Amino acid sequence: MTERRMALVASPTAAAQAAAEELRGLYEWYPIERADLVIALGGDGYMLRTLHSMLDRHRILPIFGMNLGTVGFLMNEWKPELLELRVQNAKSMTVLPLRMDAVTVDGERFSIPAINEVSLLRETRETAKLEVIVDGRVVLPELVCDGVLVATPAGSTAYNLSAQGPILPLDSSLLALTPISPFRPRRWRGAILPESAKVSFTVREPDKRPVAAVADQKEVRDVAEVHITTARDHRLTLLFDPGKTLEERIFAEQFQA
Amino acid sequence: MTERRMALVASPTAAAQAAAEELRGLYEWYPIERADLVIALGGDGYMLRTLHSMLDRHRILPIFGMNLGTVGFLMNEWKPELLELRVQNAKSMTVLPLRMDAVTVDGERFSIPAINEVSLLRETRETAKLEVIVDGRVVLPELVCDGVLVATPAGSTAYNLSAQGPILPLDSSLLALTPISPFRPRRWRGAILPESAKVSFTVREPDKRPVAAVADQKEVRDVAEVHITTARDHRLTLLFDPGKTLEERIFAEQFQA
Amino acid sequence: MTERRMALVASPTAAAQAAAEELRGLYEWYPIERADLVIALGGDGYMLRTLHSMLDRHRILPIFGMNLGTVGFLMNEWKPELLELRVQNAKSMTVLPLRMDAVTVDGERFSIPAINEVSLLRETRETAKLEVIVDGRVVLPELVCDGVLVATPAGSTAYNLSAQGPILPLDSSLLALTPISPFRPRRWRGAILPESAKVSFTVREPDKRPVAAVADQKEVRDVAEVHITTARDHRLTLLFDPGKTLEERIFAEQFQA
Amino acid sequence: MTERRMALVASPTAAAQAAAEELRGLYEWYPIERADLVIALGGDGYMLRTLHSMLDRHRILPIFGMNLGTVGFLMNEWKPELLELRVQNAKSMTVLPLRMDAVTVDGERFSIPAINEVSLLRETRETAKLEVIVDGRVVLPELVCDGVLVATPAGSTAYNLSAQGPILPLDSSLLALTPISPFRPRRWRGAILPESAKVSFTVREPDKRPVAAVADQKEVRDVAEVHITTARDHRLTLLFDPGKTLEERIFAEQFQA
Repeated sequence: MTERRMALVASPTAAAQAAAEELRGLYEWYPIERADLVIALGGDGYMLRTLHSMLDRHRILPIFGMNLGTVGFLMNEWKPELLELRVQNAKSMTVLPLRMDAVTVDGERFSIPAINEVSLLRETRETAKLEVIVDGRVVLPELVCDGVLVATPAGSTAYNLSAQGPILPLDSSLLALTPISPFRPRRWRGAILPESAKVSFTVREPDKRPVAAVADQKEVRDVAEVHITTARDHRLTLLFDPGKTLEERIFAEQFQA
Repeated sequence: MTERRMALVASPTAAAQAAAEELRGLYEWYPIERADLVIALGGDGYMLRTLHSMLDRHRILPIFGMNLGTVGFLMNEWKPELLELRVQNAKSMTVLPLRMDAVTVDGERFSIPAINEVSLLRETRETAKLEVIVDGRVVLPELVCDGVLVATPAGSTAYNLSAQGPILPLDSSLLALTPISPFRPRRWRGAILPESAKVSFTVREPDKRPVAAVADQKEVRDVAEVHITTARDHRLTLLFDPGKTLEERIFAEQFQA
Repeated sequence: MTERRMALVASPTAAAQAAAEELRGLYEWYPIERADLVIALGGDGYMLRTLHSMLDRHRILPIFGMNLGTVGFLMNEWKPELLELRVQNAKSMTVLPLRMDAVTVDGERFSIPAINEVSLLRETRETAKLEVIVDGRVVLPELVCDGVLVATPAGSTAYNLSAQGPILPLDSSLLALTPISPFRPRRWRGAILPESAKVSFTVREPDKRPVAAVADQKEVRDVAEVHITTARDHRLTLLFDPGKTLEERIFAEQFQA
Repeated sequence: MTERRMALVASPTAAAQAAAEELRGLYEWYPIERADLVIALGGDGYMLRTLHSMLDRHRILPIFGMNLGTVGFLMNEWKPELLELRVQNAKSMTVLPLRMDAVTVDGERFSIPAINEVSLLRETRETAKLEVIVDGRVVLPELVCDGVLVATPAGSTAYNLSAQGPILPLDSSLLALTPISPFRPRRWRGAILPESAKVSFTVREPDKRPVAAVADQKEVRDVAEVHITTARDHRLTLLFDPGKTLEERIFAEQFQA
């Protein structure tokens, strides 16, 4: 195997910057434009931002993260030594992001990727009224709720889990559609959908009942319509030390109680 | 029993106004200042508004509602006939409202009653971070969540039920403290507290993580602190036809599935 | 305050017997017939057995337990020193047991108290079909399920919690009626009832669908009918060190997640 | 397309027998040994029995059921007319059964297929203590519970749903591992596993804590070990009218609330 050219990126936190400093002296580094893979230092939040900036630049490289943040579900253990060997032995996990296409009440359009989830939440005291459409079929003509979310398997242990949604195996090719405080239908617990599903939400009475949509960390206020599909052409690759891959972490998370 | 002087109030909807018109010709009516009880026409939303306006005016009368709205959990069946007899035979249900004392980040203070619940919900994509205090004791130093609510027994079948909280018997003298999408602690299911409990929420990082508080239908944006107590001195009296009282409806609601 | 005469009982485990040996040399002890209160050494299981034997003998004394078992929810911390002072300063918690009156398919009758809960569970692969009656009213004509239970507040953190039932404050005067795997009505989550409620289960097709009823640890096989009431005349008194009472433990349990 | 030779089987109920009588006069029928497909009349229970008898005889034919029972989730609508055309236009759904290999405390071995689920439930008042192993890995060293089940996607809307497990899309190639009243770990909600997973349960203290295992409708008492795998070589084929396939029914079930 020929050596891979590594780029280094790091969160602005003190811990991540100190770690970056240490690594800079130990290995040869390339600018990201000429690199084959990225080493990212930080927590899950920083990892998501790095993945999003790759999606934005349409140049997607495999990424090996090391945890220097508070939550490191997407990260490997921080160790400065033997990095090239670790990367060489690492297992690849593929993650397919969602694409959220949102239209606001003013007719503005946004197309934003989401690695974990797309969520909708009411902005004011007025409950959200949503029409829920799956593959062109109205599955719920009027979901009255605080909100609703669509999560990928990678995101199923995040917001989705807090909203009582199911943890999905990483390679299950499924999505979780999970309500937040459903008023009507009241006992609705959500649905598990194939990754190929196209999920749309139409906001009813959007002026009286404003709703915000969030793709991972990017928020669009006052949406009128939200369409969610899996972005099959934006395959992300995360690298993990064997035995501690994202797949295994999601599996293990299911037995944490 | 001496005859009671009735006042008539009605929701502005066409159905309620038509019903009011019909009743006006059938019975003798008094202005609310001189009445002993109130007949209210509308749905639950109108009933709550009527109760709130009585709380605001500090003149609280027994109230007999008749359902001319979509949701009539607090209402009796609409029938123009024999109203005086129905009222005479009606059962009294006592409901103790909550009082929400909220302080905004700008130091403004609000004191608002709530018959169903006081709820807090994040306003933006940033999750709420709340310190939860019960009777002066920090029970959760940091609840990371979409929101949280405190419901009375009368309100336990409303928002609280949608957030998976327990239905409380009307005379149980309890409150339900129920989280909305708890992130941390993730599996927290809420608590049942004595009605005498004083529940406080302190919003952490309120500038970065703005939170709105809602007492029934009144919203206070950007709260810094919210204190909730039972307003024992604001006892409300609702009248119901025998066999269909609020107590029996809440009881029956527990067996709807 | 005059000194109270203490009786000592201990679980047969090595740890409890060694502790009993130590205590025997330190304090004066009385036979239980002449004692004013009981010191019990063991875990929750032993505590329940001791309470049951007091209920059986119809001589009920206050009881101060010290934990020498695996689960000590009902117990105080084990310490040999200053026992008389601890007992003198202890807080009294009142617990009302249930009474289960069961009739088997053969017509045998059993009347057994339960401090934590009365539960019914199917004995074979055939699901249980139960008619559920509260205060003489059929609330569910046919509950198809694995089983169902009625728990006291003291028992609400035990089996009831595992079956997703609500934790009830110790002094709430309520009972939890909680289903186990309800098939029909499928989304039934149970009910919270006043302590005064009389709950009855009639087993349908009891020959084809045998059901066992359990009052705490005593099992009656092949029941045809089970009636559950609160035994108001069998008030039990448990003593706890201040700040660590059963009430406070149940309260705290609500914030464990 | 050449005509397919149909065999007719029917539940012993009056309704199914009358329907069979009617069909016998309308079409040509073959003994099952020479048939290409089976028409089954009855409800879901009869359908499961028919599928099981095909699995037992190792001769598996496509099966088109018509509902003449109370629950017809696996069945098409009953209509005597145009049966050959319906069968010709029907959509094939593939269902992979589980295989349960159980060993009793006496060393007896049973190997039984299950189309819906394999479940374990305690037989007496003693809670079950189970070691849970997935693919040779101990994922829960001690699950204390009433029971646990493993469901296929086809079975995910049955027992699994009553135990609060997730509904799985029919073609998701997943299994649901769902606990029944978990005592320890108390808040365990189960897991979603790939269909390729091998799930094993070892019963701890099986003499003190007897456990029964059930594969669909067949029960093995007093098991010591249960091993569950997907029987990839026993592919079952169910035929459905277009627009009302099992896949669509499971999908629709997710939006029933």
